[in-house]
Amino acid sequence: MTDNQDLGITESKEYNTGEWYAEVVQKAGLANYAPEGMSGFIVTRPRGYALWEAVQSYLDEKFKATEVQNAYFPLFIPESYLEREKDIVEGFDPEVAWVTHGGHNELEERLAVRPTSESIIAPYMSQWVRSHRDLPLRVNQWASVVRWEATDTKPFFRTKEFLWQEGHTAHADKEDAWEETMLRLDQYESAYEDLLAIPVLRGQKPDHDKFPGADTTTTVEALMPDGKSVQGATSHHLGTSFAEAFDITYSDEDEEDRNAHTTSWGFSWRSIGALIMTHSDDQGLVLPPTVAPTQVVVVPIWQEENQEKVLDYAGSVADDLENAGIRVELDDRDERNPGFKFNEHELNGVPVRLEIGPNEVDDEEVTVVHRPDGESTVEARAEIAETVESHFDEVYAKLYAAAEENVEENVRDAFARSEILGTIGQHGGYVRAPWCGEEACETEIKDQISAEIVMVPFPDDEEKQLDLDDHDECAICGESSEETAYFAKSY
Amino acid sequence: MTDNQDLGITESKEYNTGEWYAEVVQKAGLANYAPEGMSGFIVTRPRGYALWEAVQSYLDEKFKATEVQNAYFPLFIPESYLEREKDIVEGFDPEVAWVTHGGHNELEERLAVRPTSESIIAPYMSQWVRSHRDLPLRVNQWASVVRWEATDTKPFFRTKEFLWQEGHTAHADKEDAWEETMLRLDQYESAYEDLLAIPVLRGQKPDHDKFPGADTTTTVEALMPDGKSVQGATSHHLGTSFAEAFDITYSDEDEEDRNAHTTSWGFSWRSIGALIMTHSDDQGLVLPPTVAPTQVVVVPIWQEENQEKVLDYAGSVADDLENAGIRVELDDRDERNPGFKFNEHELNGVPVRLEIGPNEVDDEEVTVVHRPDGESTVEARAEIAETVESHFDEVYAKLYAAAEENVEENVRDAFARSEILGTIGQHGGYVRAPWCGEEACETEIKDQISAEIVMVPFPDDEEKQLDLDDHDECAICGESSEETAYFAKSY
Ligand SMILES: [Zn+2]
Ligand SMILES: [Zn+2]
Repeated sequence: MTDNQDLGITESKEYNTGEWYAEVVQKAGLANYAPEGMSGFIVTRPRGYALWEAVQSYLDEKFKATEVQNAYFPLFIPESYLEREKDIVEGFDPEVAWVTHGGHNELEERLAVRPTSESIIAPYMSQWVRSHRDLPLRVNQWASVVRWEATDTKPFFRTKEFLWQEGHTAHADKEDAWEETMLRLDQYESAYEDLLAIPVLRGQKPDHDKFPGADTTTTVEALMPDGKSVQGATSHHLGTSFAEAFDITYSDEDEEDRNAHTTSWGFSWRSIGALIMTHSDDQGLVLPPTVAPTQVVVVPIWQEENQEKVLDYAGSVADDLENAGIRVELDDRDERNPGFKFNEHELNGVPVRLEIGPNEVDDEEVTVVHRPDGESTVEARAEIAETVESHFDEVYAKLYAAAEENVEENVRDAFARSEILGTIGQHGGYVRAPWCGEEACETEIKDQISAEIVMVPFPDDEEKQLDLDDHDECAICGESSEETAYFAKSY
Repeated sequence: MTDNQDLGITESKEYNTGEWYAEVVQKAGLANYAPEGMSGFIVTRPRGYALWEAVQSYLDEKFKATEVQNAYFPLFIPESYLEREKDIVEGFDPEVAWVTHGGHNELEERLAVRPTSESIIAPYMSQWVRSHRDLPLRVNQWASVVRWEATDTKPFFRTKEFLWQEGHTAHADKEDAWEETMLRLDQYESAYEDLLAIPVLRGQKPDHDKFPGADTTTTVEALMPDGKSVQGATSHHLGTSFAEAFDITYSDEDEEDRNAHTTSWGFSWRSIGALIMTHSDDQGLVLPPTVAPTQVVVVPIWQEENQEKVLDYAGSVADDLENAGIRVELDDRDERNPGFKFNEHELNGVPVRLEIGPNEVDDEEVTVVHRPDGESTVEARAEIAETVESHFDEVYAKLYAAAEENVEENVRDAFARSEILGTIGQHGGYVRAPWCGEEACETEIKDQISAEIVMVPFPDDEEKQLDLDDHDECAICGESSEETAYFAKSY
């Protein structure tokens, strides 16, 4: 029993979400906390890193298919560079880790460990862009960044060092830059919805919450089961502000000098946090087959008298799956019983389990069990790879449907301050309200219940908007309402 | 003319190797130097980073096919951790970049930016290894590391920050660990010989030049055209020294506690430096088709009266190549003449060029030109993808043969100190000499001509060894010779 308790999840997702999350991350072998003296850092173990590799490979392929080239910029940024874009340094200064010594010598100028790379990438874009023929210019970097936040660590969601990609592009005009901004937002949405089985809401941040210097910050937001929103990824239309600050200019077809229009967009391993949080349960990790390092485990169940035939049959099933390119594990360990194995693979989030005992062998069948809900089906042995693939699709659809239901049930409307506060207090989730556009009105809500405006729908996204003709007063101050604001508590 | 001089290479590979190399790196768009205040760092541009991605993908696939799992450890290492393995800290202390402040606060304990990760990975391996069933354990990390060397920067060869992978494994016994060490050395050798077209010499480092704490440090060495050797990659058999220092123990089948045997192995972007240095020439970058971001460029050559038919034909050739999975570029720019385009693609290292003019169209042919030597062949339009693939093989073979000839001609024997000095002084390259095994004898050579023992052949590698029965005296001190030492100047 002690052994089982050590291995299994003891916290409740519903009642102790934070503790439960931390337990899943550790017991499913996704990450460990870093050593003493390094609070806020994590060690990402192979099962956790494989999830990041899956995301990385999905997005990297999409980026390359749309003319993005990868590059690599230095880990450090001189303080004077960081200061060159004052808006940025105001944003990041308190969060920067500073290198002051190289070997035994103090540096003349201290170096920031990159909190983001705008301020070192932009000066090089300035060098590389000369003529309109050099545009659009698109570079992307996969890297780790450091932000010295003092808050509690939550692996993947909030860590002082995190892995991400940052894309930076320059364009001849505003329309091209806007198209780019939206293309990257589409790709981020696709990573959530088509790879991670997490539906997201797209929109833009209120003006007071934009990336410093940006014209528009766009976002995809995901609703977690505890009713809080996660900012899934952001794509910024920067206008000409970075081009002006860093002299990113080009000569157009008439040899006139013009400012380029730039964008930047980033996707981090916070997505892995959202993935774990969304689908997992009190038995442990749950993963969609798209990203699971092991997609299916074959568990043979034998007694001594039928050991050979069961193991042979299970082995041939596993071979068929492997040959079809499926990530399969054959768990033929002798020292563990089937129940132990079931628990372990459930904890580790293997999406599909095949059980094979003597009956399955005799009937030329396999028993297929879905991780998310335990649903069990008996299937023919023939064409097992196709069968398993279609079970992957079913599992994916179940996970997506559950997450979608959570979002759909948790967008509520409110037309008065008390309604906003009451609804978020009682249900969490998103509250849509007519809003005047003033930060002060958000502040009132934030001060009272720590909820903020996580998203404002795009002007042409009518489905997400309230009818402002019917609701023409800001829910908080009563002034004229300009937009529909989505309020939520947020990670 | 000014324009052409700006674009083209002006230095000579033979007479000014260092300046020539720096010029190729910059003019072929591989890397830029980092900003002022960050000497020793580089900005890796897309064409340069694509080379690293090619190496990374080649090795990563080999690693995963041989049971290696990727993980990610923190960028920083607490000073106390670095000190725990005294041998390591003595090795790296003067080269460490130190983070002393997070935001506005001084840290209680300063943090090293990882110069290598043994000292943070080993304590986690200690946690993860409990029983013999947990072995072998293999983790690998792709990351950037920082070593604050004061020497001149040479992009990719010597930079304060560089990209690499470091693999760390634990095994039940010495034999397994040794097999692992050699498996990784084999994979490194294959990356050089089968991907980068660079033949290497394999062997081990002299005892006094091993990785601190290692039983054996194995290496692959590549000879550069200027007669200097590059340590291409190293794979270390660490014995039980790290297991003892970091308590990596396991209970064996009889429940006895035992020390694990560990290995570590690393491959860095220095390989990209060796690649550029080995094959390139006074026209610019030369790359094998295996790693070239653009493998073949199609250059249509037209006059106004045949423009349409030439462009259509060239476009259909490019389409065929692209559909066959070849990385092809169609250079149909109107504003540049063919000569300019030829120069530019030569500078950028495109391995094969297809020239298509009206004659080629009429005869249903294409002209194929090899970058390394300008060899030109007329080939049939039909089955162009297969034809181009076979030209890729020819180009690869030419590059490999030239590099191999360089090595074969530059291994010379010497049996006296003056002979060692004279031969290296006159020819560079490798000098094989009988050696007593004492560091002092190497020091004598080092002091006089800056050459060192870069490699000692493995005991069973007879082909690389001198007959020590015939040459039983150390070439330097005259004491009994124990080994064959390869002396060379080295990067
Ligand atoms: Zn208001
Ligand atoms: Zn000697």
